[in-house]
Amino acid sequence: MSYPANRSDKLLRINSDRLWSRHMEMARIGAIEETGSCRLAMSAEDAEARELLASWCRQAGLDVQVDGAGNMFAVRPGTDPTRRPVGSGSHLDTQPHGGRFDGISGVLAALEVVETLNDEGIQTAAPLAVVNWTNEEGVRYAPGLLGSAWYADLIDDERLDGLTSVDGTYFKQEARERGWLGHGSEKLPLEAFLELHIEQGPILEQEGLDIGIVTTVQGLRWIDVDVIGNDAHAGTTPLDQRQDALLSAARMLVALNEIGRSYGSAARVSVGQLRTATNGPSTVVGHASFVIDIRHPDAGTLAKLSEECGAVCQTIGETAGCAVKITERISVAPTVFNKRCVAALEDGAIKHSYSYRHIASGALHDAANVAKVAPTAMVFVPCRDGISHNVKEYASPGSLAAGTNVLLHAVLKLAA
Amino acid sequence: MSYPANRSDKLLRINSDRLWSRHMEMARIGAIEETGSCRLAMSAEDAEARELLASWCRQAGLDVQVDGAGNMFAVRPGTDPTRRPVGSGSHLDTQPHGGRFDGISGVLAALEVVETLNDEGIQTAAPLAVVNWTNEEGVRYAPGLLGSAWYADLIDDERLDGLTSVDGTYFKQEARERGWLGHGSEKLPLEAFLELHIEQGPILEQEGLDIGIVTTVQGLRWIDVDVIGNDAHAGTTPLDQRQDALLSAARMLVALNEIGRSYGSAARVSVGQLRTATNGPSTVVGHASFVIDIRHPDAGTLAKLSEECGAVCQTIGETAGCAVKITERISVAPTVFNKRCVAALEDGAIKHSYSYRHIASGALHDAANVAKVAPTAMVFVPCRDGISHNVKEYASPGSLAAGTNVLLHAVLKLAA
Repeated sequence: MSYPANRSDKLLRINSDRLWSRHMEMARIGAIEETGSCRLAMSAEDAEARELLASWCRQAGLDVQVDGAGNMFAVRPGTDPTRRPVGSGSHLDTQPHGGRFDGISGVLAALEVVETLNDEGIQTAAPLAVVNWTNEEGVRYAPGLLGSAWYADLIDDERLDGLTSVDGTYFKQEARERGWLGHGSEKLPLEAFLELHIEQGPILEQEGLDIGIVTTVQGLRWIDVDVIGNDAHAGTTPLDQRQDALLSAARMLVALNEIGRSYGSAARVSVGQLRTATNGPSTVVGHASFVIDIRHPDAGTLAKLSEECGAVCQTIGETAGCAVKITERISVAPTVFNKRCVAALEDGAIKHSYSYRHIASGALHDAANVAKVAPTAMVFVPCRDGISHNVKEYASPGSLAAGTNVLLHAVLKLAA
Repeated sequence: MSYPANRSDKLLRINSDRLWSRHMEMARIGAIEETGSCRLAMSAEDAEARELLASWCRQAGLDVQVDGAGNMFAVRPGTDPTRRPVGSGSHLDTQPHGGRFDGISGVLAALEVVETLNDEGIQTAAPLAVVNWTNEEGVRYAPGLLGSAWYADLIDDERLDGLTSVDGTYFKQEARERGWLGHGSEKLPLEAFLELHIEQGPILEQEGLDIGIVTTVQGLRWIDVDVIGNDAHAGTTPLDQRQDALLSAARMLVALNEIGRSYGSAARVSVGQLRTATNGPSTVVGHASFVIDIRHPDAGTLAKLSEECGAVCQTIGETAGCAVKITERISVAPTVFNKRCVAALEDGAIKHSYSYRHIASGALHDAANVAKVAPTAMVFVPCRDGISHNVKEYASPGSLAAGTNVLLHAVLKLAA
């Protein structure tokens, strides 16, 4: 979908240079391999990034608050004392070999919206909040999306109190020592929440579009598949007398891909983890296991797709004389974003004459958690070659400015 | 092939009870898990097993010699001083979780042949030699088939001098300390060599046969296949926009199996080792590698089969947008055993009215090395469910006796 320019009314625009320079300044903290970032949640680098964000927020006149999970809310007052803040943001933490945009862009876009309003002397009825959610990436502390999960009551205080990192550090102790843990378990209620994020996929770039209006976050299932055959000698055992678990697993992977394709472009069926019990070139593998990652934006279709994936593995295993054990490990329901928030973002894209499409997010995001407790939606901007979680991750200044203009329009609409 | 009984002449037979009791006595050394053995080459257990064998050989009047690779030759004189020994044997060392028969049966069968001749007061024109080859299994010291490789000049003195175990121990130093290293690099020339071994495959058992007359040892190629695609996010990347290295590898495994089957029952095409560079359920795998183990008794067919296997991987990779790198790691030519030795064994099976067939060995054996410097052949006996390299490995007293009777007949024929 592409819309012709319609510039009859004066359009408010963000400052693209400021937005880009903030990205580059933030990228100095935990910089790796020229264009990469390593700022694991609650590390010294994450703390330094938080301090930089807080200093910018304070310069913009915002009141920086931190909650009991370390989530940051930098609040700009509204004119209507009865209203709650309209929040916008994402996360500052990165993958170990992460880039300069995943998460960070959403936080800096939210700040840029506020600064643009400051520049123009525009007040909103509802307060605004620039939000940084704690530990989205989940590298040291599991699960990921930790701060937003606690915020949305998906993780309780007890679990957060006991949470330790892979190296045994208590989350709360480290957050406190870094100076980024608030008191109590109170949560700042939001009237709505908007998150800008890079797409992390190739669709917008390949379709030549400026903006993705995210209507849903795909549901996710992880299915563990255990294939049990018989170890055998690769030289002495004829091909028709084997129960080759790895060969059966290979047949399953091929069949799973076919099933995924048959469900259309929104379906994802992937196997990224496959293990064998033996690992010798001369041993026919007697035990192989893998995880199927299945995603679809529609709950009913996701269930049907998952069932079909499990069934085809059973059938292939039986045909090959292998036993197959199917176990569901994770099931996350799809998130459908709030219609009013989606419409506000879409209206922004139209007003700015950006080409856009509706899109389902294949990755999980903090916004999917927040959507459980507040009206929420997301806006995607294209990233080069769809690459993320990688030092090569890149979104252009123009793309980030377009997404932030859309965000600005939507925030004004929701907070008016 | 099954042959009717023909007992017109008196047949010499070995002592099955003695043979079995020797197996059970040997199995006490390095016993594991009730029915298993762990006697790694040149370990304390291997040295103890060698000492037991040597004591039995000396009791049988044999002269025990050890060569510069620790190979044992227990020699019984012949009546013709111009002739060289007819050797028979295998190896006493085992896999870490090995059984009581792989290798050991060949050594004890050779000893049983000599003891039967002693019992009957039969002299042979050629001397006889009971042989224990060093380090067939290659668990601590690589390569396997070490002693027979050195004997057949496939490994030179310099390489043997420098050989160390996985834990840094020098082979020669350990062999000397265990008391099982001879002096110099002289090799005892053999007039012929026969090896009895368990089949390590299911064919004889499934076809209900007593004996396998081994005419060839399959040639072997190991081909490394590297599949290079692109890492991608399993949620955000549409199925038709991936270069999924693991999925491509899976398609290759399926195609390789089909090619193997199309080459008939003697062909083996296996993948027992597959690795992925990433190992996360949500990451489309950008790099996968595996090893194809290809075997066939005919050199020309093996070459053609290997070429076809490489080509199909190239084609599948290209179709999926993945780069494919093919590297040959190992190439071992097939061994065709000596016709006279094969005929001597076959004649033994016929004389004893055992059901038998010609068979190709899918596993490598010391006999394949010895065949490079002396007329050689092998006889297989069935083992339960084709299992070997496993504590469950089992060959019945009756099967072992049948194989040893065939060996006795062939030794007499060759040494007459």
